[in-house]
Amino acid sequence: MELWFSEFHTPDVKHSLRVDRHLYSKKSDYQQIDIYDTPEFGKVLTLDGNVMLTERDEFIYDEMITHVPMAVHPNVQDVLVIGAGDGGVVKELARYECIQSIDLVEMDEDVVSACRQYLPENACRLDDKRVHIYFDNALRFIRRRKAQYDLIIVDSTDPFGPSEGYFTREFYGICYNALKDDGIMVNQQGSPFYRHDAQAMQRSHKRIVSTFPISRVYQAHIPTYAAGYWLFGFASKKYHPIDDFDREKWLKLHLKTKYYTVRLHAGAFFLPAFLEEMLEEVE
Amino acid sequence: MELWFSEFHTPDVKHSLRVDRHLYSKKSDYQQIDIYDTPEFGKVLTLDGNVMLTERDEFIYDEMITHVPMAVHPNVQDVLVIGAGDGGVVKELARYECIQSIDLVEMDEDVVSACRQYLPENACRLDDKRVHIYFDNALRFIRRRKAQYDLIIVDSTDPFGPSEGYFTREFYGICYNALKDDGIMVNQQGSPFYRHDAQAMQRSHKRIVSTFPISRVYQAHIPTYAAGYWLFGFASKKYHPIDDFDREKWLKLHLKTKYYTVRLHAGAFFLPAFLEEMLEEVE
Repeated sequence: MELWFSEFHTPDVKHSLRVDRHLYSKKSDYQQIDIYDTPEFGKVLTLDGNVMLTERDEFIYDEMITHVPMAVHPNVQDVLVIGAGDGGVVKELARYECIQSIDLVEMDEDVVSACRQYLPENACRLDDKRVHIYFDNALRFIRRRKAQYDLIIVDSTDPFGPSEGYFTREFYGICYNALKDDGIMVNQQGSPFYRHDAQAMQRSHKRIVSTFPISRVYQAHIPTYAAGYWLFGFASKKYHPIDDFDREKWLKLHLKTKYYTVRLHAGAFFLPAFLEEMLEEVE
Repeated sequence: MELWFSEFHTPDVKHSLRVDRHLYSKKSDYQQIDIYDTPEFGKVLTLDGNVMLTERDEFIYDEMITHVPMAVHPNVQDVLVIGAGDGGVVKELARYECIQSIDLVEMDEDVVSACRQYLPENACRLDDKRVHIYFDNALRFIRRRKAQYDLIIVDSTDPFGPSEGYFTREFYGICYNALKDDGIMVNQQGSPFYRHDAQAMQRSHKRIVSTFPISRVYQAHIPTYAAGYWLFGFASKKYHPIDDFDREKWLKLHLKTKYYTVRLHAGAFFLPAFLEEMLEEVE
Protein backbone atom coordinates (compact mmCIF):
# COMPACT_ATOMS: atom_id res chain seq x y z
CA MET A 1 0.00 0.00 0.00
CA GLU A 2 1.20 3.51 -0.80
CA LEU A 3 0.17 6.29 1.56
CA TRP A 4 0.70 9.91 0.53
CA PHE A 5 -0.16 13.23 2.16
CA SER A 6 -0.90 15.93 -0.40
CA GLU A 7 -1.26 19.66 0.08
CA PHE A 8 -2.70 21.89 -2.60
CA HIS A 9 -0.53 25.00 -2.80
CA THR A 10 -3.02 26.28 -5.34
CA PRO A 11 -5.97 24.41 -6.90
CA ASP A 12 -3.52 23.49 -9.69
CA VAL A 13 -0.32 22.68 -7.75
CA LYS A 14 0.08 19.82 -5.32
CA HIS A 15 2.95 18.90 -3.01
CA SER A 16 2.96 15.32 -1.76
CA LEU A 17 4.93 13.48 0.89
CA ARG A 18 5.07 9.72 1.20
CA VAL A 19 3.75 8.65 4.60
CA ASP A 20 4.95 5.70 6.67
CA ARG A 21 2.39 6.09 9.43
CA HIS A 22 -0.50 8.34 10.37
CA LEU A 23 0.39 8.86 14.02
CA TYR A 24 -2.29 11.22 15.27
CA SER A 25 -5.60 12.61 14.10
CA LYS A 26 -8.03 14.77 16.02
CA LYS A 27 -10.71 17.29 15.28
CA SER A 28 -10.17 19.83 18.04
CA ASP A 29 -12.53 22.68 18.90
CA TYR A 30 -10.70 24.82 16.35
CA GLN A 31 -9.23 22.69 13.58
CA GLN A 32 -8.26 19.27 12.25
CA ILE A 33 -4.88 18.23 13.69
CA ASP A 34 -2.80 15.45 12.13
CA ILE A 35 0.71 14.13 12.62
CA TYR A 36 2.33 11.86 10.04
CA ASP A 37 5.61 10.03 10.02
CA THR A 38 7.31 10.44 6.65
CA PRO A 39 10.56 9.01 5.27
CA GLU A 40 11.82 12.31 3.82
CA PHE A 41 10.71 14.91 6.38
CA GLY A 42 10.37 12.91 9.57
CA LYS A 43 7.30 13.76 11.59
CA VAL A 44 4.96 16.28 9.98
CA LEU A 45 2.31 18.36 11.75
CA THR A 46 -0.64 19.52 9.65
CA LEU A 47 -3.54 21.76 10.67
CA ASP A 48 -6.63 21.62 8.46
CA GLY A 49 -4.52 19.78 5.88
CA ASN A 50 -1.75 22.40 5.69
CA VAL A 51 1.81 21.54 6.67
CA MET A 52 2.77 23.54 9.77
CA LEU A 53 6.13 21.99 10.43
CA THR A 54 8.26 19.00 9.63
CA GLU A 55 11.14 17.70 11.70
CA ARG A 56 13.43 18.02 8.69
CA ASP A 57 12.91 21.70 7.83
CA GLU A 58 11.41 23.36 10.95
CA PHE A 59 14.85 24.82 11.78
CA ILE A 60 14.58 27.21 8.85
CA TYR A 61 11.31 28.77 9.95
CA ASP A 62 12.01 28.74 13.68
CA GLU A 63 15.51 30.17 13.37
CA MET A 64 14.53 32.89 10.94
CA ILE A 65 11.49 34.12 12.87
CA THR A 66 13.51 34.19 16.12
CA HIS A 67 17.17 35.08 15.54
CA VAL A 68 16.58 37.97 13.14
CA PRO A 69 14.76 40.17 15.70
CA MET A 70 16.91 38.86 18.59
CA ALA A 71 20.06 40.00 16.76
CA VAL A 72 18.61 43.49 16.23
CA HIS A 73 17.01 44.40 19.56
CA PRO A 74 19.76 45.20 22.11
CA ASN A 75 18.02 43.84 25.18
CA VAL A 76 15.04 41.52 24.85
CA GLN A 77 13.65 40.57 28.23
CA ASP A 78 9.92 40.04 27.74
CA VAL A 79 8.57 38.14 24.77
CA LEU A 80 5.07 37.31 23.60
CA VAL A 81 4.59 34.43 21.17
CA ILE A 82 1.23 34.03 19.43
CA GLY A 83 0.32 30.63 18.03
CA ALA A 84 3.37 28.39 17.84
CA GLY A 85 1.85 25.73 20.08
CA ASP A 86 4.31 23.26 18.57
CA GLY A 87 7.04 24.87 20.67
CA GLY A 88 9.55 25.47 17.87
CA VAL A 89 9.82 29.24 18.39
CA VAL A 90 10.05 28.83 22.16
CA LYS A 91 12.85 26.28 21.65
CA GLU A 92 14.91 28.94 19.83
CA LEU A 93 14.00 31.78 22.22
CA ALA A 94 14.90 29.73 25.27
CA ARG A 95 18.54 29.68 24.12
CA TYR A 96 18.86 33.38 25.04
CA GLU A 97 19.80 33.96 28.64
CA CYS A 98 18.78 37.62 28.44
CA ILE A 99 15.13 36.64 28.08
CA GLN A 100 13.30 36.66 31.39
CA SER A 101 9.76 35.84 30.38
CA ILE A 102 8.03 34.20 27.41
CA ASP A 103 4.25 34.37 27.23
CA LEU A 104 2.87 31.87 24.74
CA VAL A 105 -0.74 32.37 23.70
CA GLU A 106 -2.14 29.43 21.77
CA MET A 107 -5.86 29.01 21.28
CA ASP A 108 -5.75 25.26 20.78
CA GLU A 109 -4.62 23.19 23.76
CA ASP A 110 -4.76 20.03 21.64
CA VAL A 111 -1.93 21.30 19.42
CA VAL A 112 0.33 21.66 22.43
CA SER A 113 -0.49 18.26 23.90
CA ALA A 114 -0.11 16.49 20.53
CA CYS A 115 3.28 18.13 19.98
CA ARG A 116 4.47 17.33 23.49
CA GLN A 117 3.69 13.70 22.78
CA TYR A 118 4.77 13.27 19.16
CA LEU A 119 7.26 16.10 18.54
CA PRO A 120 9.15 16.26 21.83
CA GLU A 121 12.30 17.72 20.23
CA ASN A 122 10.24 20.65 19.04
CA ALA A 123 8.23 21.06 22.23
CA CYS A 124 11.17 20.39 24.56
CA ARG A 125 11.46 23.92 25.95
CA LEU A 126 7.78 24.53 26.66
CA ASP A 127 8.57 23.52 30.24
CA ASP A 128 11.31 26.14 30.63
CA LYS A 129 10.48 28.03 33.82
CA ARG A 130 10.41 31.34 31.93
CA VAL A 131 7.59 30.11 29.68
CA HIS A 132 3.96 30.84 30.57
CA ILE A 133 1.39 29.18 28.35
CA TYR A 134 -2.07 30.75 27.98
CA PHE A 135 -4.77 28.85 26.12
CA ASP A 136 -6.70 31.89 25.07
CA ASN A 137 -7.82 34.04 22.19
CA ALA A 138 -4.77 36.12 21.32
CA LEU A 139 -6.72 39.30 20.53
CA ARG A 140 -8.41 39.24 23.91
CA PHE A 141 -5.12 38.44 25.64
CA ILE A 142 -3.06 41.18 24.01
CA ARG A 143 -5.71 43.88 24.30
CA ARG A 144 -5.10 43.90 28.04
CA ARG A 145 -1.32 44.34 27.71
CA LYS A 146 0.21 47.81 27.37
CA ALA A 147 3.90 48.54 26.76
CA GLN A 148 4.82 45.20 28.21
CA TYR A 149 6.88 43.35 25.60
CA ASP A 150 10.20 43.88 23.85
CA LEU A 151 9.36 41.37 21.15
CA ILE A 152 6.14 39.87 19.80
CA ILE A 153 6.40 36.88 17.45
CA VAL A 154 3.22 36.12 15.53
CA ASP A 155 3.56 32.50 14.47
CA SER A 156 0.03 32.00 13.23
CA THR A 157 -1.41 29.81 10.51
CA ASP A 158 -2.23 31.49 7.19
CA PRO A 159 -4.80 34.29 6.97
CA PHE A 160 -7.56 32.01 5.71
CA GLY A 161 -9.66 30.43 8.46
CA PRO A 162 -9.08 30.50 12.21
CA SER A 163 -6.06 32.84 12.06
CA GLU A 164 -7.68 35.49 9.87
CA GLY A 165 -7.97 37.82 12.87
CA TYR A 166 -4.17 37.90 13.23
CA PHE A 167 -3.75 39.73 9.94
CA THR A 168 -6.04 42.72 10.54
CA ARG A 169 -5.22 46.37 11.17
CA GLU A 170 -6.87 46.09 14.58
CA PHE A 171 -4.62 43.19 15.53
CA TYR A 172 -1.45 45.01 14.51
CA GLY A 173 -2.65 48.03 16.48
CA ILE A 174 -3.05 46.09 19.71
CA CYS A 175 0.35 44.45 19.14
CA TYR A 176 1.82 47.95 18.74
CA ASN A 177 0.29 48.99 22.04
CA ALA A 178 1.49 45.86 23.82
CA LEU A 179 5.08 46.61 22.80
CA LYS A 180 7.45 48.86 24.74
CA ASP A 181 8.73 52.05 23.09
CA ASP A 182 11.48 50.20 21.27
CA GLY A 183 9.60 46.96 20.65
CA ILE A 184 9.70 44.72 17.58
CA MET A 185 6.95 42.57 16.09
CA VAL A 186 7.84 39.75 13.70
CA ASN A 187 5.17 37.75 11.90
CA GLN A 188 4.96 34.99 9.34
CA GLN A 189 3.97 36.82 6.21
CA GLY A 190 3.15 34.01 3.77
CA SER A 191 4.53 33.37 0.33
CA PRO A 192 4.75 35.90 -2.51
CA PHE A 193 4.61 33.51 -5.43
CA TYR A 194 1.09 32.22 -6.02
CA ARG A 195 -1.46 34.96 -6.60
CA HIS A 196 -3.82 34.18 -3.73
CA ASP A 197 -0.93 34.09 -1.23
CA ALA A 198 0.66 37.20 -2.72
CA GLN A 199 -2.52 39.23 -2.38
CA ALA A 200 -2.90 38.23 1.28
CA MET A 201 0.75 39.16 1.86
CA GLN A 202 0.20 42.58 0.28
CA ARG A 203 -2.92 43.26 2.37
CA SER A 204 -1.14 42.35 5.56
CA HIS A 205 2.01 44.33 4.69
CA LYS A 206 -0.11 47.39 3.94
CA ARG A 207 -1.71 47.19 7.39
CA ILE A 208 1.63 46.77 9.15
CA VAL A 209 3.15 49.70 7.24
CA SER A 210 0.29 51.92 8.39
CA THR A 211 0.82 50.85 12.02
CA PHE A 212 4.61 50.74 12.55
CA PRO A 213 7.20 53.38 11.58
CA ILE A 214 9.60 50.67 10.36
CA SER A 215 8.34 47.74 8.35
CA ARG A 216 10.46 45.40 6.24
CA VAL A 217 9.97 41.96 4.74
CA TYR A 218 12.56 39.17 4.74
CA GLN A 219 12.68 35.74 3.17
CA ALA A 220 13.75 32.13 3.60
CA HIS A 221 13.75 28.92 1.56
CA ILE A 222 11.30 26.53 3.23
CA PRO A 223 10.83 23.40 1.10
CA THR A 224 7.47 22.26 2.49
CA TYR A 225 5.73 25.65 2.24
CA ALA A 226 4.06 27.04 -0.89
CA ALA A 227 6.57 27.54 -3.71
CA GLY A 228 9.35 26.76 -1.18
CA TYR A 229 9.53 30.49 -0.61
CA TRP A 230 8.40 32.09 2.65
CA LEU A 231 8.32 35.62 4.02
CA PHE A 232 8.47 37.22 7.43
CA GLY A 233 7.43 40.72 8.41
CA PHE A 234 9.77 42.79 10.59
CA ALA A 235 7.82 45.68 12.17
CA SER A 236 9.49 47.95 14.65
CA LYS A 237 9.03 51.13 16.65
CA LYS A 238 12.68 52.12 16.72
CA TYR A 239 15.25 49.59 15.48
CA HIS A 240 16.05 49.05 11.82
CA PRO A 241 16.60 45.39 10.91
CA ILE A 242 19.94 46.02 9.16
CA ASP A 243 21.22 49.40 10.42
CA ASP A 244 20.70 48.40 14.06
CA PHE A 245 21.76 44.79 13.64
CA ASP A 246 24.60 44.06 16.10
CA ARG A 247 26.56 41.35 14.36
CA GLU A 248 29.41 41.15 16.85
CA LYS A 249 27.17 40.98 19.87
CA TRP A 250 25.21 38.11 18.37
CA LEU A 251 28.37 36.22 17.44
CA LYS A 252 29.57 36.46 21.05
CA LEU A 253 26.57 34.41 22.13
CA HIS A 254 28.06 31.41 20.25
CA LEU A 255 24.65 30.07 19.29
CA LYS A 256 24.99 27.21 16.83
CA THR A 257 22.45 27.55 14.02
CA LYS A 258 21.69 25.49 10.92
CA TYR A 259 20.16 28.23 8.75
CA TYR A 260 20.62 31.70 10.24
CA THR A 261 24.03 33.37 9.94
CA VAL A 262 25.07 36.98 10.44
CA ARG A 263 25.79 37.28 6.70
CA LEU A 264 22.45 35.77 5.76
CA HIS A 265 20.75 38.20 8.16
CA ALA A 266 21.23 41.09 5.74
CA GLY A 267 20.88 38.97 2.62
CA ALA A 268 17.43 37.84 3.74
CA PHE A 269 16.18 41.42 3.32
CA PHE A 270 17.45 41.73 -0.28
CA LEU A 271 14.36 40.73 -2.20
CA PRO A 272 13.65 39.87 -5.84
CA ALA A 273 12.49 42.71 -8.07
CA PHE A 274 8.94 41.36 -8.44
CA LEU A 275 8.53 41.26 -4.66
CA GLU A 276 9.97 44.75 -4.15
CA GLU A 277 7.36 45.98 -6.62
CA MET A 278 4.54 44.18 -4.83
CA LEU A 279 5.56 45.74 -1.51
CA GLU A 280 6.01 49.23 -2.97
CA GLU A 281 2.51 49.04 -4.44
CA VAL A 282 1.05 49.04 -0.94
CA GLU A 283 3.61 51.16 0.95
CA MET B 1 -10.95 14.10 -16.51
CA GLU B 2 -8.08 15.35 -14.36
CA LEU B 3 -4.63 15.41 -15.93
CA TRP B 4 -1.59 15.96 -13.69
CA PHE B 5 2.13 16.00 -14.38
CA SER B 6 4.15 14.77 -11.38
CA GLU B 7 7.86 14.96 -10.75
CA PHE B 8 9.51 12.99 -7.99
CA HIS B 9 11.96 15.31 -6.23
CA THR B 10 12.97 12.28 -4.19
CA PRO B 11 11.36 8.81 -4.16
CA ASP B 12 9.27 10.16 -1.25
CA VAL B 13 8.41 13.70 -2.42
CA LYS B 14 6.29 14.55 -5.42
CA HIS B 15 5.49 17.90 -7.03
CA SER B 16 2.46 17.92 -9.30
CA LEU B 17 1.05 20.43 -11.77
CA ARG B 18 -2.44 20.27 -13.19
CA VAL B 19 -2.27 19.99 -16.98
CA ASP B 20 -4.73 21.46 -19.47
CA ARG B 21 -3.12 19.95 -22.54
CA HIS B 22 -0.18 17.76 -23.45
CA LEU B 23 1.11 19.82 -26.39
CA TYR B 24 4.19 17.93 -27.50
CA SER B 25 5.84 14.58 -26.89
CA LYS B 26 8.85 13.13 -28.64
CA LYS B 27 11.57 10.63 -27.88
CA SER B 28 14.60 12.28 -29.44
CA ASP B 29 17.98 10.63 -29.97
CA TYR B 30 18.95 11.75 -26.47
CA GLN B 31 15.92 12.06 -24.23
CA GLN B 32 12.15 12.20 -23.82
CA ILE B 33 10.90 15.73 -24.56
CA ASP B 34 7.44 16.90 -23.45
CA ILE B 35 5.66 20.23 -23.36
CA TYR B 36 2.51 20.69 -21.28
CA ASP B 37 0.13 23.59 -20.96
CA THR B 38 -0.73 24.18 -17.30
CA PRO B 39 -3.08 26.67 -15.62
CA GLU B 40 -0.60 27.73 -12.92
CA PHE B 41 2.76 27.76 -14.70
CA GLY B 42 1.80 28.25 -18.36
CA LYS B 43 3.75 26.08 -20.76
CA VAL B 44 6.14 23.64 -19.13
CA LEU B 45 9.09 21.90 -20.81
CA THR B 46 10.20 18.58 -19.33
CA LEU B 47 13.15 16.39 -20.33
CA ASP B 48 13.02 12.76 -19.20
CA GLY B 49 10.19 13.75 -16.87
CA ASN B 50 12.06 16.57 -15.10
CA VAL B 51 10.82 20.15 -15.31
CA MET B 52 13.35 22.25 -17.23
CA LEU B 53 11.41 25.46 -17.42
CA THR B 54 7.96 26.91 -17.04
CA GLU B 55 6.73 30.15 -18.56
CA ARG B 56 5.80 31.38 -15.09
CA ASP B 57 9.12 31.00 -13.30
CA GLU B 58 11.83 30.76 -16.01
CA PHE B 59 12.74 34.41 -15.38
CA ILE B 60 14.27 33.48 -12.03
CA TYR B 61 16.65 30.90 -13.42
CA ASP B 62 17.50 32.74 -16.63
CA GLU B 63 18.08 36.10 -14.95
CA MET B 64 20.19 34.69 -12.13
CA ILE B 65 22.45 32.56 -14.33
CA THR B 66 23.01 35.50 -16.72
CA HIS B 67 22.98 38.86 -14.93
CA VAL B 68 25.17 37.85 -11.97
CA PRO B 69 28.28 37.17 -14.11
CA MET B 70 27.40 39.97 -16.56
CA ALA B 71 27.39 42.48 -13.68
CA VAL B 72 30.82 41.31 -12.50
CA HIS B 73 32.90 40.95 -15.67
CA PRO B 74 33.79 44.44 -16.98
CA ASN B 75 33.66 43.64 -20.69
CA VAL B 76 31.98 40.49 -21.93
CA GLN B 77 32.27 40.16 -25.69
CA ASP B 78 32.37 36.42 -26.43
CA VAL B 79 30.05 34.01 -24.68
CA LEU B 80 29.63 30.25 -24.85
CA VAL B 81 26.35 28.72 -23.67
CA ILE B 82 26.16 24.96 -23.14
CA GLY B 83 22.76 23.29 -23.20
CA ALA B 84 19.99 25.89 -22.90
CA GLY B 85 18.38 24.89 -26.18
CA ASP B 86 15.18 26.46 -24.91
CA GLY B 87 16.72 29.88 -25.58
CA GLY B 88 16.06 31.41 -22.15
CA VAL B 89 19.68 32.23 -21.35
CA VAL B 90 20.28 33.60 -24.85
CA LYS B 91 17.18 35.80 -24.44
CA GLU B 92 18.79 37.46 -21.39
CA LEU B 93 22.29 37.65 -22.89
CA ALA B 94 21.00 39.26 -26.10
CA ARG B 95 19.95 42.31 -24.07
CA TYR B 96 23.61 43.29 -23.62
CA GLU B 97 24.95 45.39 -26.50
CA CYS B 98 28.55 44.74 -25.42
CA ILE B 99 28.24 41.09 -26.39
CA GLN B 100 29.51 40.42 -29.90
CA SER B 101 29.16 36.67 -30.20
CA ILE B 102 27.14 33.92 -28.49
CA ASP B 103 28.00 30.31 -29.29
CA LEU B 104 25.23 27.97 -28.20
CA VAL B 105 26.13 24.27 -28.08
CA GLU B 106 23.11 22.02 -27.64
CA MET B 107 23.30 18.33 -28.32
CA ASP B 108 19.60 17.88 -29.02
CA GLU B 109 18.23 19.68 -32.08
CA ASP B 110 14.71 18.53 -31.19
CA VAL B 111 14.75 20.65 -28.00
CA VAL B 112 15.45 23.78 -30.02
CA SER B 113 12.82 23.10 -32.64
CA ALA B 114 10.17 22.21 -30.03
CA CYS B 115 10.88 25.40 -28.08
CA ARG B 116 10.86 27.55 -31.21
CA GLN B 117 7.39 26.20 -31.94
CA TYR B 118 5.81 26.04 -28.47
CA LEU B 119 7.82 28.48 -26.35
CA PRO B 120 8.47 31.33 -28.79
CA GLU B 121 8.83 33.94 -26.02
CA ASN B 122 11.68 31.93 -24.57
CA ALA B 123 13.32 31.09 -27.88
CA CYS B 124 12.74 34.53 -29.41
CA ARG B 125 16.39 35.62 -29.48
CA LEU B 126 17.87 32.45 -30.95
CA ASP B 127 17.74 34.23 -34.31
CA ASP B 128 19.77 37.19 -33.08
CA LYS B 129 22.57 37.64 -35.60
CA ARG B 130 25.21 37.30 -32.85
CA VAL B 131 24.00 33.81 -31.97
CA HIS B 132 25.62 30.74 -33.54
CA ILE B 133 23.96 27.43 -32.74
CA TYR B 134 26.00 24.22 -32.86
CA PHE B 135 24.24 20.89 -32.49
CA ASP B 136 27.20 19.05 -31.12
CA ASN B 137 28.68 17.30 -28.11
CA ALA B 138 29.80 20.12 -25.81
CA LEU B 139 32.98 18.36 -24.61
CA ARG B 140 34.15 17.84 -28.18
CA PHE B 141 33.23 21.40 -29.10
CA ILE B 142 34.96 23.11 -26.17
CA ARG B 143 38.10 21.00 -26.31
CA ARG B 144 39.02 22.74 -29.56
CA ARG B 145 38.60 26.25 -28.06
CA LYS B 146 41.47 27.95 -26.25
CA ALA B 147 41.29 31.32 -24.46
CA GLN B 148 38.35 32.30 -26.61
CA TYR B 149 35.50 33.22 -24.25
CA ASP B 150 34.89 35.86 -21.59
CA LEU B 151 31.96 33.94 -20.16
CA ILE B 152 30.81 30.32 -20.29
CA ILE B 153 27.31 29.50 -19.03
CA VAL B 154 26.68 25.81 -18.38
CA ASP B 155 22.92 25.41 -18.47
CA SER B 156 22.81 21.63 -18.48
CA THR B 157 20.29 19.18 -17.08
CA ASP B 158 21.15 17.54 -13.76
CA PRO B 159 24.22 15.33 -13.35
CA PHE B 160 22.28 12.10 -13.68
CA GLY B 161 21.97 10.79 -17.27
CA PRO B 162 22.90 12.57 -20.50
CA SER B 163 24.47 15.60 -18.79
CA GLU B 164 26.72 13.66 -16.42
CA GLY B 165 29.78 14.59 -18.49
CA TYR B 166 29.18 18.29 -17.74
CA PHE B 167 29.95 17.83 -14.04
CA THR B 168 33.39 16.16 -14.29
CA ARG B 169 36.82 17.53 -13.46
CA GLU B 170 37.81 17.03 -17.11
CA PHE B 171 34.89 19.16 -18.27
CA TYR B 172 35.69 22.03 -15.89
CA GLY B 173 39.32 21.82 -17.06
CA ILE B 174 38.43 22.26 -20.72
CA CYS B 175 36.08 25.13 -19.81
CA TYR B 176 38.96 26.74 -17.92
CA ASN B 177 41.15 26.45 -21.02
CA ALA B 178 38.45 27.83 -23.30
CA LEU B 179 38.17 30.98 -21.16
CA LYS B 180 40.35 34.05 -21.58
CA ASP B 181 42.68 35.05 -18.72
CA ASP B 182 39.90 36.87 -16.89
CA GLY B 183 37.04 34.58 -17.85
CA ILE B 184 34.07 33.47 -15.75
CA MET B 185 32.17 30.18 -15.82
CA VAL B 186 28.70 29.97 -14.31
CA ASN B 187 26.84 26.68 -14.03
CA GLN B 188 23.60 25.36 -12.63
CA GLN B 189 24.67 23.64 -9.47
CA GLY B 190 21.55 21.78 -8.35
CA SER B 191 19.73 21.94 -5.05
CA PRO B 192 21.30 21.51 -1.61
CA PHE B 193 18.28 20.21 0.24
CA TYR B 194 17.58 16.56 -0.57
CA ARG B 195 20.50 14.25 0.13
CA HIS B 196 21.00 12.86 -3.37
CA ASP B 197 21.04 16.37 -4.89
CA ALA B 198 23.26 17.72 -2.12
CA GLN B 199 25.89 15.04 -2.65
CA ALA B 200 26.00 15.74 -6.39
CA MET B 201 26.33 19.45 -5.65
CA GLN B 202 29.24 18.80 -3.28
CA ARG B 203 31.06 16.60 -5.81
CA SER B 204 30.70 19.19 -8.51
CA HIS B 205 31.72 22.08 -6.24
CA LYS B 206 34.84 20.17 -5.17
CA ARG B 207 35.88 19.73 -8.79
CA ILE B 208 35.31 23.39 -9.63
CA VAL B 209 37.25 24.53 -6.55
CA SER B 210 40.22 22.42 -7.66
CA THR B 211 40.08 23.96 -11.16
CA PHE B 212 39.38 27.69 -10.66
CA PRO B 213 41.10 30.09 -8.24
CA ILE B 214 37.76 31.70 -7.33
CA SER B 215 34.69 29.55 -6.77
CA ARG B 216 31.50 30.65 -5.02
CA VAL B 217 27.95 29.36 -4.88
CA TYR B 218 24.83 31.52 -5.06
CA GLN B 219 21.15 30.78 -4.68
CA ALA B 220 17.64 31.54 -5.93
CA HIS B 221 14.07 30.57 -5.08
CA ILE B 222 12.73 28.54 -8.04
CA PRO B 223 9.30 27.08 -7.21
CA THR B 224 9.26 24.23 -9.75
CA TYR B 225 12.72 22.87 -8.91
CA ALA B 226 13.52 20.45 -6.08
CA ALA B 227 12.75 21.99 -2.67
CA GLY B 228 12.14 25.32 -4.47
CA TYR B 229 15.78 26.07 -3.77
CA TRP B 230 18.39 26.19 -6.52
CA LEU B 231 22.11 26.92 -6.67
CA PHE B 232 24.50 28.31 -9.24
CA GLY B 233 28.28 28.00 -9.30
CA PHE B 234 30.36 31.11 -10.00
CA ALA B 235 33.88 30.08 -11.04
CA SER B 236 36.36 32.67 -12.11
CA LYS B 237 40.00 33.18 -13.05
CA LYS B 238 40.23 36.76 -11.82
CA TYR B 239 37.02 38.52 -10.78
CA HIS B 240 35.38 38.07 -7.41
CA PRO B 241 31.56 37.93 -7.59
CA ILE B 242 31.04 40.58 -4.91
CA ASP B 243 34.30 42.57 -4.64
CA ASP B 244 34.44 43.11 -8.40
CA PHE B 245 30.73 43.61 -8.88
CA ASP B 246 30.16 46.98 -10.59
CA ARG B 247 26.75 48.01 -9.34
CA GLU B 248 26.69 51.47 -10.91
CA LYS B 249 27.78 50.27 -14.31
CA TRP B 250 25.05 47.65 -14.38
CA LEU B 251 22.39 50.14 -13.27
CA LYS B 252 23.37 52.45 -16.15
CA LEU B 253 22.30 49.74 -18.60
CA HIS B 254 18.68 50.23 -17.44
CA LEU B 255 17.82 46.57 -17.90
CA LYS B 256 14.40 45.81 -16.48
CA THR B 257 14.43 42.57 -14.51
CA LYS B 258 11.82 40.65 -12.54
CA TYR B 259 14.10 38.82 -10.10
CA TYR B 260 17.69 40.08 -10.26
CA THR B 261 18.51 43.37 -8.52
CA VAL B 262 21.85 44.90 -7.55
CA ARG B 263 20.97 44.42 -3.87
CA LEU B 264 19.95 40.81 -4.39
CA HIS B 265 23.23 40.24 -6.26
CA ALA B 266 25.21 40.22 -3.02
CA GLY B 267 22.44 38.66 -0.94
CA ALA B 268 22.34 35.65 -3.26
CA PHE B 269 25.85 34.72 -2.08
CA PHE B 270 24.91 34.80 1.64
CA LEU B 271 24.05 31.16 2.24
CA PRO B 272 22.41 29.26 5.08
CA ALA B 273 24.71 27.75 7.70
CA PHE B 274 24.02 24.16 6.64
CA LEU B 275 25.02 24.95 3.07
CA GLU B 276 28.17 26.83 4.09
CA GLU B 277 29.18 23.72 6.01
CA MET B 278 28.52 21.42 3.06
CA LEU B 279 30.68 23.61 0.82
CA GLU B 280 33.48 23.93 3.36
CA GLU B 281 33.60 20.15 3.68
CA VAL B 282 34.83 19.88 0.10
CA GLU B 283 36.83 23.10 -0.25
